[in-house]
Amino acid sequence: MHNLVARLFPICRSITGPGVRETLRILQEFIPIQIHEVPTGTPVFDWTVPREWSIRDAFIADSSGRRLVDFQRNNLHVFGYSTPIDRRMSLSELDEHLFSLPAQPDAIPYVTSYYKERWGFCLTHRQRLELKPDTYHVFIDSKLADGSLTYAECVFPGTTDQEIFLSTYICHPSMANNELSGPVVTTFIAKWIELIPRYYTYRVIFVPETIGSITYLSRHLDHLKKHVIAGFNISCVGDDRAFSCVSSRYGNTLADRIARHALRFISPNYITHSFLDRGSDERQYCSPGVDLPIVGLCRSKYGTYPEYHTSLDNLELVTPTGLAGGYEMVRCCLEALEGNFHYKVNCLGEPCLGKRGLYPTLSRKGSADTVKTMMDFLAYADGTNDLVSIAELIGVSVWELFPIVTQMKASGLISEFEV
Amino acid sequence: MHNLVARLFPICRSITGPGVRETLRILQEFIPIQIHEVPTGTPVFDWTVPREWSIRDAFIADSSGRRLVDFQRNNLHVFGYSTPIDRRMSLSELDEHLFSLPAQPDAIPYVTSYYKERWGFCLTHRQRLELKPDTYHVFIDSKLADGSLTYAECVFPGTTDQEIFLSTYICHPSMANNELSGPVVTTFIAKWIELIPRYYTYRVIFVPETIGSITYLSRHLDHLKKHVIAGFNISCVGDDRAFSCVSSRYGNTLADRIARHALRFISPNYITHSFLDRGSDERQYCSPGVDLPIVGLCRSKYGTYPEYHTSLDNLELVTPTGLAGGYEMVRCCLEALEGNFHYKVNCLGEPCLGKRGLYPTLSRKGSADTVKTMMDFLAYADGTNDLVSIAELIGVSVWELFPIVTQMKASGLISEFEV
Amino acid sequence: MHNLVARLFPICRSITGPGVRETLRILQEFIPIQIHEVPTGTPVFDWTVPREWSIRDAFIADSSGRRLVDFQRNNLHVFGYSTPIDRRMSLSELDEHLFSLPAQPDAIPYVTSYYKERWGFCLTHRQRLELKPDTYHVFIDSKLADGSLTYAECVFPGTTDQEIFLSTYICHPSMANNELSGPVVTTFIAKWIELIPRYYTYRVIFVPETIGSITYLSRHLDHLKKHVIAGFNISCVGDDRAFSCVSSRYGNTLADRIARHALRFISPNYITHSFLDRGSDERQYCSPGVDLPIVGLCRSKYGTYPEYHTSLDNLELVTPTGLAGGYEMVRCCLEALEGNFHYKVNCLGEPCLGKRGLYPTLSRKGSADTVKTMMDFLAYADGTNDLVSIAELIGVSVWELFPIVTQMKASGLISEFEV
Repeated sequence: MHNLVARLFPICRSITGPGVRETLRILQEFIPIQIHEVPTGTPVFDWTVPREWSIRDAFIADSSGRRLVDFQRNNLHVFGYSTPIDRRMSLSELDEHLFSLPAQPDAIPYVTSYYKERWGFCLTHRQRLELKPDTYHVFIDSKLADGSLTYAECVFPGTTDQEIFLSTYICHPSMANNELSGPVVTTFIAKWIELIPRYYTYRVIFVPETIGSITYLSRHLDHLKKHVIAGFNISCVGDDRAFSCVSSRYGNTLADRIARHALRFISPNYITHSFLDRGSDERQYCSPGVDLPIVGLCRSKYGTYPEYHTSLDNLELVTPTGLAGGYEMVRCCLEALEGNFHYKVNCLGEPCLGKRGLYPTLSRKGSADTVKTMMDFLAYADGTNDLVSIAELIGVSVWELFPIVTQMKASGLISEFEV
Repeated sequence: MHNLVARLFPICRSITGPGVRETLRILQEFIPIQIHEVPTGTPVFDWTVPREWSIRDAFIADSSGRRLVDFQRNNLHVFGYSTPIDRRMSLSELDEHLFSLPAQPDAIPYVTSYYKERWGFCLTHRQRLELKPDTYHVFIDSKLADGSLTYAECVFPGTTDQEIFLSTYICHPSMANNELSGPVVTTFIAKWIELIPRYYTYRVIFVPETIGSITYLSRHLDHLKKHVIAGFNISCVGDDRAFSCVSSRYGNTLADRIARHALRFISPNYITHSFLDRGSDERQYCSPGVDLPIVGLCRSKYGTYPEYHTSLDNLELVTPTGLAGGYEMVRCCLEALEGNFHYKVNCLGEPCLGKRGLYPTLSRKGSADTVKTMMDFLAYADGTNDLVSIAELIGVSVWELFPIVTQMKASGLISEFEV
Repeated sequence: MHNLVARLFPICRSITGPGVRETLRILQEFIPIQIHEVPTGTPVFDWTVPREWSIRDAFIADSSGRRLVDFQRNNLHVFGYSTPIDRRMSLSELDEHLFSLPAQPDAIPYVTSYYKERWGFCLTHRQRLELKPDTYHVFIDSKLADGSLTYAECVFPGTTDQEIFLSTYICHPSMANNELSGPVVTTFIAKWIELIPRYYTYRVIFVPETIGSITYLSRHLDHLKKHVIAGFNISCVGDDRAFSCVSSRYGNTLADRIARHALRFISPNYITHSFLDRGSDERQYCSPGVDLPIVGLCRSKYGTYPEYHTSLDNLELVTPTGLAGGYEMVRCCLEALEGNFHYKVNCLGEPCLGKRGLYPTLSRKGSADTVKTMMDFLAYADGTNDLVSIAELIGVSVWELFPIVTQMKASGLISEFEV
């Protein structure tokens, strides 16, 4: 996964334009996504699809012609959606269009101006301090024109038309945790989904954040409300620090229960962020009237780590093990969902495990625990609890229960059903 | 308000009689209350309106004729509802009719005997210790005769006939926190209610405690049960110490939610007393079968401060700032109620605040917080929550939300409705 | 009760056979139990009634003929359901059939092999260490043959056919807390039930653990599900240490509420064990589909005390005071159930206690508390709460409320009803 992050890293993405398309074309090498274009000006809920932005080059050169700030070196140097300019100006005039972070003097900040037309450059604070009074050549070769918004989706049909929904975003330029970890982990998760036997149908989308999810919802809301039983917004899943989730509006959906159960299994110290700390597309999916059962999954959540939205969110912050942990977190949530049926024991009173050969034949260390877990599972297999509920009632994980469920089903001791 | 407390202070009130009438006549100078008389003997629920008590003079004089204990100096000196007497007796005979507080030797206690006929004097423990064997002239010129129970009410109509109910009591002689702070704050609140645009209809009553509220309920219960959405019993609201409320029977009415929200805003250290600590007319309003959504509002609650029910509950204990705080507490509860509608955002997904000019135009300190509060408000404006619930869900007060609600309503972004 | 424990102690009980019958015959001297026999091979839910086991003698003798391990001295020496044997063998062959506890070298452990045919001896670890290489005579004169499973029950009819259910077990050989304390306390409780005026019908059963309760349920489930409102499994109620209960599956039945209320009254430090710590017949009564409202009552629960399932669980561990406490615990639960009606005050507003003479006439220490309890009881006597709920809402025990209820009923102030 880290290689794919590295390959996508240099591309200058924005909420529309060629960077998104190039990114999605590369992901198409891995998974069968379909790419959709929505024309500029299309009304999408309370918004309108914006004009498409593209940029070829940009720099600030001093009077000697030396490029001091150069888009070719780092695409964060130019404001996202910056208007074009080709002028000479004094330092004091230029200075009003510069943005840097005094507290992080080696970081180039990430700034966009999607909804107000202006131009600007981001640079490290060290670079800024070195600028001397001079006549600067300021050049941005960008274009804001009618075009379209690009997103991609793929659907993996299952036995049922009930859906599990995954969403991630592809609109940030060269930053690794926010955001390339999201689409890359999601791509590899989609490859895994393709291979497994599926009870549920899976819908995976790659959209620009906010305007992309709003666009997608405006086209598919009825379908999603009817079919989606749980979903996850996958963002910032590539560093080696926290495991966390962002709760849905009331924190009480199936997705919330699954995420908390899976994250406790992965890392008992995981963090549950309130919906008040939302910030990615769960904002749209959990908005009033949309009301989808969707939870955000993150390692270090956007806004909580110092490198966030700067050039320091790079290929060192995101690591192979960090990405593997993010992948594991998502996979565990999906596994827990796939096995989350209701169970009912088929006999009255305690079942006779002995006559079915369900007692461990050799008494080894741990075998008593297995019998205890088995009996506890059966005690709460009363048809009112799904597997995650049973697991939480008896203090184990669903992964400890899966082999027991398989044995019990095979022996005819329990019935499995959906609610 | 302190001036009015001072003016009412000397009047000798009891649960019936001229003291109540004089008090209500003075309040009539401020607000349009109607005074009602209910004849002695009228059955009121499990009780009967008692005979009316009046007193002109009372004293204990020594054999030299010197008045040692004198009703003219402090009306607490005589038991409330004391029977008349005019006899000479020894100290030992007298002593059985004296009541003082050894632990508070400078306080005259407040004692009544409404439902058992007897006579008695209260005095400071210092006074009592000075009494020497002598023949004392004991004189009480009181009368217990058929008459009536007096109460007053005023109704301020609103847009709806749903009512907010305020009750306070006017049956204690010269004591300031319990009770004059109650009727005085309520009088000024009624003056304020008169001036404001009212969605709700307000009913404000001034009754003798217990028998008065029982009498009022016995005449108006059906109306109150049909119309009252929330109410407050206002008592002991004039000192500078605590802010507190007395919960309804199960602590789960709209009045409870409003009181807790308003008190947390006024004073984060406010005290919520359980219904088990009730003691004023919430006893009646929240009794089984009556079941009105009414909460007690107090500063230092009756029974919790050392001066309670003694002559030390005076014009020094109750202060202008204490009364202002009591007034503020009640006003905040009413403001919170008046604005407590349900809200539903009118678009799907996050609204585009920019196109409506709802983003702060200047980025000042705090403006990001306002946007955050605005977005959080909209996120929970899903029609299922009233404003107080939204405020508590997102961790702000309704006073922070009122201007946002006004803006959002003006922009058409939200619908307001009652449930 | 201790005498009866002592009399039953020497009998060699097992889940079937003459020991059970002899035990029940002795209990029949005290209470009118009916004894039932269920033939070997009868299907009972997921199980089958096993063959009947009896034993006359057993020993291990050394080559000199001296009995080193002798069933006549302690019936724990032989595995329960041991197959017969009469052979001479080396120590190393014998050793595979011996069981002792190195950590408790003076305790004979209790071992059974109900569902796998084998033979074995239990002995103290000290005894085991003294065994020298020799040719041992191993003799077990036992028989496993078709017969029947024996249990007993008695029913004490009440005013209503709603039932309170008590269950205890009679299948362990010479151990005192687990189990003789259970049937002995239950016997004396049954004697008490016989004498009291009964609103509820009481059903008391004495069964072998697990297979006995399964057998009983398989014959009476429909009746029990229709009539039983609460019940208790009585086990390990004879030592002087803890008071505890084992919750039902979700800990939310009437029996749970009653047990917790009564145990808090008996001993504020009582222990509530989760259903995950179940181990006696509550396993059957609370299993899915059976779903009876039954809770386990214990002093030191099986599995939690060091003498459990060894010869140290003897007539010293179980004491007269321990048994009295166990008896008291069960009696309190039944008393709380018998008085657990719903109450509704018959007047609106606070009742006038004075006119009914319900105020204490003399003001003594504590009388104010009684009035407070009386008023609090009336405040929550709104028809929605049973007596235990009222008691818990107002922070007293039902035993403090019983005399108040009697007074209030006599005065006509409250109505009593079932829900």
